[in-house]
Amino acid sequence: MAKQKKSPRPKAETPKGFRDYFGAEVTHRTEMLGKIAAVYHRYGFDALESSGVETVQALGKFLPDVDRPNEGVFAWQEDADSDKPGDWLALRYDLTAPLARVYAQHQNDLPKPYRRFAMGPVWRNEKPGPGRFRQFYQCDADTVGASSVAADAEICAMLADCLEEVGIDRGDYIVRVNNRKVLNGVMEVAGLSGVDKEAERGIVLRAIDKLDRLGVDGVRALLGEGRKDESGDFTKGAGLNDAQADVVMGFMQAKRDSGAQTVERLRALVADSTVGIEGVDELELIADLMSAAGYGPDRIEIDPSVVRGLGYYTGPVFEAELTFEIKDEKGRTRNFGSVAGGGRYDDLVKRFTGQEVPATGVSIGVDRLLAALDAKGRLDKTADGPVVVTVMDKARMADYQAMVAELRQAGIRAEVYLGNPKNFGNQLKYADKRGSPVAVIEGGDEHEKGVIQIKDLILGAQMAEGASLEEYKELPSQYEVPRDQLVVKVREILDSQN
Amino acid sequence: MAKQKKSPRPKAETPKGFRDYFGAEVTHRTEMLGKIAAVYHRYGFDALESSGVETVQALGKFLPDVDRPNEGVFAWQEDADSDKPGDWLALRYDLTAPLARVYAQHQNDLPKPYRRFAMGPVWRNEKPGPGRFRQFYQCDADTVGASSVAADAEICAMLADCLEEVGIDRGDYIVRVNNRKVLNGVMEVAGLSGVDKEAERGIVLRAIDKLDRLGVDGVRALLGEGRKDESGDFTKGAGLNDAQADVVMGFMQAKRDSGAQTVERLRALVADSTVGIEGVDELELIADLMSAAGYGPDRIEIDPSVVRGLGYYTGPVFEAELTFEIKDEKGRTRNFGSVAGGGRYDDLVKRFTGQEVPATGVSIGVDRLLAALDAKGRLDKTADGPVVVTVMDKARMADYQAMVAELRQAGIRAEVYLGNPKNFGNQLKYADKRGSPVAVIEGGDEHEKGVIQIKDLILGAQMAEGASLEEYKELPSQYEVPRDQLVVKVREILDSQN
Repeated sequence: MAKQKKSPRPKAETPKGFRDYFGAEVTHRTEMLGKIAAVYHRYGFDALESSGVETVQALGKFLPDVDRPNEGVFAWQEDADSDKPGDWLALRYDLTAPLARVYAQHQNDLPKPYRRFAMGPVWRNEKPGPGRFRQFYQCDADTVGASSVAADAEICAMLADCLEEVGIDRGDYIVRVNNRKVLNGVMEVAGLSGVDKEAERGIVLRAIDKLDRLGVDGVRALLGEGRKDESGDFTKGAGLNDAQADVVMGFMQAKRDSGAQTVERLRALVADSTVGIEGVDELELIADLMSAAGYGPDRIEIDPSVVRGLGYYTGPVFEAELTFEIKDEKGRTRNFGSVAGGGRYDDLVKRFTGQEVPATGVSIGVDRLLAALDAKGRLDKTADGPVVVTVMDKARMADYQAMVAELRQAGIRAEVYLGNPKNFGNQLKYADKRGSPVAVIEGGDEHEKGVIQIKDLILGAQMAEGASLEEYKELPSQYEVPRDQLVVKVREILDSQN
Repeated sequence: MAKQKKSPRPKAETPKGFRDYFGAEVTHRTEMLGKIAAVYHRYGFDALESSGVETVQALGKFLPDVDRPNEGVFAWQEDADSDKPGDWLALRYDLTAPLARVYAQHQNDLPKPYRRFAMGPVWRNEKPGPGRFRQFYQCDADTVGASSVAADAEICAMLADCLEEVGIDRGDYIVRVNNRKVLNGVMEVAGLSGVDKEAERGIVLRAIDKLDRLGVDGVRALLGEGRKDESGDFTKGAGLNDAQADVVMGFMQAKRDSGAQTVERLRALVADSTVGIEGVDELELIADLMSAAGYGPDRIEIDPSVVRGLGYYTGPVFEAELTFEIKDEKGRTRNFGSVAGGGRYDDLVKRFTGQEVPATGVSIGVDRLLAALDAKGRLDKTADGPVVVTVMDKARMADYQAMVAELRQAGIRAEVYLGNPKNFGNQLKYADKRGSPVAVIEGGDEHEKGVIQIKDLILGAQMAEGASLEEYKELPSQYEVPRDQLVVKVREILDSQN
């Protein structure tokens, strides 16, 4: 067997672009996802967990984002080395493609409409970069089989509820809604609706999708002749004349002070387009539905400058933006920005069944939202290290185990020091590394007297840091108590620390 | 782009050996894992989530189970088609191999000993079978860097606590402990300790690992000349003579009525072996530690018939067995059996660093334990379908949305019917499919009168099933209430249903 061969030692490294999550990094995410799952559930969505692996055929080979055609999947062929190689399999790159497969496969058993939520890792075979990993979490909710924009409206409300539930205050976020059909109307009005104008429409779509990155001038350039980027590369534009470009720019900049004014402005802009008016009507209906359900423009607003995903979605498009300020890596103040997005896509299962099935959904950026909660101080950073029962006499391990058992049964996180107990300093160093709030010490003398020493490590650290000798005497950080007071005294110290 | 080509429709299927989990299948598992995580945490273990993907080099190519050398991993080469193909990557096949890599990679930053728990999917590239999937959950806790058997003892106690926490009653499980060193002693006594006897020892180890499957006679045959299985295939035995085989069989059958008697029996069996006596001492110490911590032989017992994994582990070995009876697929009564196992393995990171680092841990079989909870009726099967607000008039969607918003804000799971509302029967069928407890109806008449109809669907179904006309009149299942009584009345009905 291979094991017998002398081989060089393997490198202990994650593959590039992957990482490990430790302790609170895991539990904070679990807690946040649990809260979001509770909101999704309250809205009638059912959990779905599909496997991480799909056939390449079912998955479709390409990510929807046309700007990055090289983004790929991790794929391999079954039984590649055998006489009869099998299917190509791949790790899922999002949770929407598997939803399409699941819906097509199980549609006879699923309720219609089907509301499902899913959370879990997805994988992208792309070049890793700073803060950009090849495995990350997504957290989606979608309604399949409902053509009513009430389904879209509801998802916007749910998104607002999710953000508040995890700890983003009202006023610190806004869910912004736009509509692809309005853009289609704009294209029509700008004379870009013919079959022969498909290339131009593609360029326009990609251009406005870059509004965030390139700004108004950059987009305007791409609508016209084209644009040279910093590296000198030239991107050919859509070749619109000024009047045409004005119409497109007017759409993105149509936002007014009130939703009603914005709707009025859009309606004027696309007055000559049936699909455009349809889109404006949908936006207006969403606003009405939201208002009836108590979600005013302080939480959900119509905003034609939401352009991300407009090339992908077919109807309403929405995005949740966090509006509070943070400092970026260069110390500049900016809005936190987008943490979730979604919209309507009506060709979900068509690839499989030929039928058009309407669907709408949202995806919350798990890492982004966690970063936002961190920035707002909403992650519980209370040290939750265990109480450490030190080992003064290896032969009396049973006594120490009895102590931790008592503490644990009282619901207190606790452990016996299980390293080599010879050096007591190492035991206290260990407790320090674990962020332990309390150490318990019972040497031979204490054992004879039936007492234990309980050390408040938080107070001890504070005192070591700055206290004067008087304060030190006033505030002892170590207490001798009878053995049977273990749980009571530890609990008392823990309570005093919080 | 590929999309443009006319290609046949993809099949909507999971790859073979994979499956989807719906609704309660997901939430039951999440709840169970949450409870186990809380116990692991209380014992001082920290969460770790490593990525699903590792380098093949770091993972090691083979599963520890020597009986199935063809079990493999899903693997692929980075940039296989490029000029510079990269590393081979693979999906993790368990949570222990990644722990070894993590510990070797991060050991300077980790506390020593390092207690970590991990839960998540693992992947096996093996032939799928009934109930056997190629992606499944594992749920592990390990202590790395502690040579004391107190670490093993503690994991046994933690395992007992986990089982009780998720809903297995005391008396319905037993954690059984054995020790590989005792077996090594037995080998020595049987004259199988020389370097030249490695092949025989290998056969003995594999033979006793099959005790569950082959029974005493089957193992005995494999210790001797060999064994012909049902298919006629002959497996060569270890070639032990009767006296030698008796020693080995005596070890597996050394269990007596009390732990003390078992220890005494084992001590006699390996009296001439230093390592054997060391193993017996460890077993005795584990029993003492457990007893001091309040875990008696009703929960944790010494049992030399625990043989699973004895070939893999290096010291204490443990297994949690559920002792209540279930009917198997053929209607026969049998014990539920094993749901978790673990032990000490002292070469965890040696592959990476050359150092021997002692480690011990446990892995809970997530699907097995869920099945056990199901068999014991411990999974919450209360229908938790949403309250469905039906749509009588599409134009009044805003009113219906306001109703669900009220219900949701009161913490009640609710939704508006979002399918085509034309056929009211379809709306009730939908509510039925969702397991909805209550339907809310507000037509034009009701709207004018300021009332709503609230239908108790559970009671309605009961009445439809068996009630006489009189009972039907006595027990109306539909109530007309003022619109502002929506939440109050729905809550009243929900309370009456539970």
